[in-house]
Amino acid sequence: MKENARIEAFSDGVFAIAITLLVLELKVPPLSSIHSVSDLWEGLVNLWPSYFAFTLSFGILLVSWVNHHYLFNILDKSSRPFLYANGFLLFTITFMPFPTALLAQYISTEYAKPAIAFYCFGGVVNSLSWNLLLRTIHKPLNLTHSETDNNILKTVKRSTQIGLVIYTVATIMSFWLPMIALAINLLLWIVWISLSISTKER
Amino acid sequence: MKENARIEAFSDGVFAIAITLLVLELKVPPLSSIHSVSDLWEGLVNLWPSYFAFTLSFGILLVSWVNHHYLFNILDKSSRPFLYANGFLLFTITFMPFPTALLAQYISTEYAKPAIAFYCFGGVVNSLSWNLLLRTIHKPLNLTHSETDNNILKTVKRSTQIGLVIYTVATIMSFWLPMIALAINLLLWIVWISLSISTKER
Amino acid sequence: MKENARIEAFSDGVFAIAITLLVLELKVPPLSSIHSVSDLWEGLVNLWPSYFAFTLSFGILLVSWVNHHYLFNILDKSSRPFLYANGFLLFTITFMPFPTALLAQYISTEYAKPAIAFYCFGGVVNSLSWNLLLRTIHKPLNLTHSETDNNILKTVKRSTQIGLVIYTVATIMSFWLPMIALAINLLLWIVWISLSISTKER
Amino acid sequence: MKENARIEAFSDGVFAIAITLLVLELKVPPLSSIHSVSDLWEGLVNLWPSYFAFTLSFGILLVSWVNHHYLFNILDKSSRPFLYANGFLLFTITFMPFPTALLAQYISTEYAKPAIAFYCFGGVVNSLSWNLLLRTIHKPLNLTHSETDNNILKTVKRSTQIGLVIYTVATIMSFWLPMIALAINLLLWIVWISLSISTKER
Repeated sequence: MKENARIEAFSDGVFAIAITLLVLELKVPPLSSIHSVSDLWEGLVNLWPSYFAFTLSFGILLVSWVNHHYLFNILDKSSRPFLYANGFLLFTITFMPFPTALLAQYISTEYAKPAIAFYCFGGVVNSLSWNLLLRTIHKPLNLTHSETDNNILKTVKRSTQIGLVIYTVATIMSFWLPMIALAINLLLWIVWISLSISTKER
Repeated sequence: MKENARIEAFSDGVFAIAITLLVLELKVPPLSSIHSVSDLWEGLVNLWPSYFAFTLSFGILLVSWVNHHYLFNILDKSSRPFLYANGFLLFTITFMPFPTALLAQYISTEYAKPAIAFYCFGGVVNSLSWNLLLRTIHKPLNLTHSETDNNILKTVKRSTQIGLVIYTVATIMSFWLPMIALAINLLLWIVWISLSISTKER
Repeated sequence: MKENARIEAFSDGVFAIAITLLVLELKVPPLSSIHSVSDLWEGLVNLWPSYFAFTLSFGILLVSWVNHHYLFNILDKSSRPFLYANGFLLFTITFMPFPTALLAQYISTEYAKPAIAFYCFGGVVNSLSWNLLLRTIHKPLNLTHSETDNNILKTVKRSTQIGLVIYTVATIMSFWLPMIALAINLLLWIVWISLSISTKER
Repeated sequence: MKENARIEAFSDGVFAIAITLLVLELKVPPLSSIHSVSDLWEGLVNLWPSYFAFTLSFGILLVSWVNHHYLFNILDKSSRPFLYANGFLLFTITFMPFPTALLAQYISTEYAKPAIAFYCFGGVVNSLSWNLLLRTIHKPLNLTHSETDNNILKTVKRSTQIGLVIYTVATIMSFWLPMIALAINLLLWIVWISLSISTKER
């Protein structure tokens, strides 16, 4: 664990910054467009696509971080392939503010489809990066504790596979039923957190 | 504490980034609007709403971080419900730069009311997230040290309850007396820091 | 030291973010203003005020961080007054990107004076916050190791006092000789780093 | 290592923030320019220079961080010259979002040459800062463990020298064959990661 402290610190930094940069996508209604108090109320209400996108991505990143946290608990060393696979995972995490801003901008317009498809596809790539990371845990070196709790590894693996299937389905679906595809994204982390909380494992 | 090190690191990252992103709301007076040295002096003075909003939010986030810091001192493990409750708290923290920028933009205009009400309401949600976090400390698992200093827990609980009441009052009040509501926000953390410093506990 | 680990982590986060946000002040020459390859070369050269302001503030923040680092080496606990004094210091650090952007925008114009005075005054406030922090190390609690190396404390104190005097002089001077005042800012950290490196202490 | 924990934390913060700020260069296609779903698809495809620049710089920063990580593994103390040399390295890291944004803006225009030359030159300065850092490891104090694994030091030294030569060649080449120069940048980290992963050392 000691050896991995710095990888965790760097990863935590990237997760924390990506999750916090999401707020930059929320734009204050410009003064020039406001002519009365009720205009400003309306302006704040009309930002709902931004609040939605912010909340959606925050939830996804939070669940990712929690899984990352539990995964590292069972490792006690690293390897270069693992380091770079983790780097690829972080690549998909740092990218998140872009599809989030895209979603916020277009979700309430008639051009929502490409924004939603792009967003879902980001989930596919993220799932693939988790998949790759999990492989490097056993090859070329075994990085887990000798007395590893395999339940944690199983949980992360299962969530990775479920995530990959769901994001792939959502991406395909977004070309016909974009709003359903989006709802799946939202449900995914709400269900995930609910299951996590109700589970007996720590 | 060791087990919680990474949760603290992630939380510290989020607090540190949210508190530092506040500065992005301070906009340099555009060159095109400046025609003399005294124009620039005036431009810098006219930014007072931004300095005020920056200072106000910085104080609130700093007090939050100090409380978070003391709370974690008495915990030595975590649970998934705790992790997600902490995630919800961080959600309200990362959101802060938005109401801050809103306040800076509208506080000196005749449309200040919605901006102030929105800002105060942010305080209500933040207080609720603290409330939730404190619950997860005892349920489903007890996360505190066996020899826990209950004074710290009491201090955090009391400040959470006081915060919830005051922010609720301020939110309601902001519809009639917005400037008083805002003054309450400012007084809240000045009084809080003064009390903290004068107290005997470390 | 263990007890202070989280204060250091939070402070490091704030320093790291403030120093990295400086880069946002560097603006790529807009495509619409570029009509030839030499236009772009010229545009990049004309950004010298931004490069200068970026380098100046980076140096100041780096020296601040190094001093902060050495100061914490001699402490092994904290107090609430210390925590809030450290918070005030971090307030002056997070503010830095604003005077930096101001300087970058106006240093090459005829309105440089207020920008430089404002920048120097930021140094005065930062010096005052150091002063306050150093006081809270001995009152109300003594926070240093029993076997403290007083040389480090003396070094930090001396640099704080020198900083306060020089920034005050530079602020006053900036009303008559702004460029000299600015040169003093630059010399300050160049001399400081040179002295640090040539000194025998670690 | 303990003594260096805070230097690592600060450096990790700077690396993590610089790598995450790269995403700010990705700009959502403005709503006003979109008149159909296919316009938005096209707009997203036309962002390829931004995706490319983001990926290129992410890779370079990731490799830098991995090398930094391995270098610190063999050190167990620091010195002021080392601290400031590390600061200079971080200076070149925090600067990265600027040449990245410059590249993204100009790579697909006829004014690509200065942007590419500037980007490659950033690599030269970064290589020089690594060179300086490696020198301060032995002078004025020897900062390595007594039982140091010299292979790691050799690896970092070799990569620094190769980097310096290649970036210098790429910078010169960029005046005649800018696209080849750019391809070298990309190949550099792809080859580097491939070699790292295939190597037997951890």
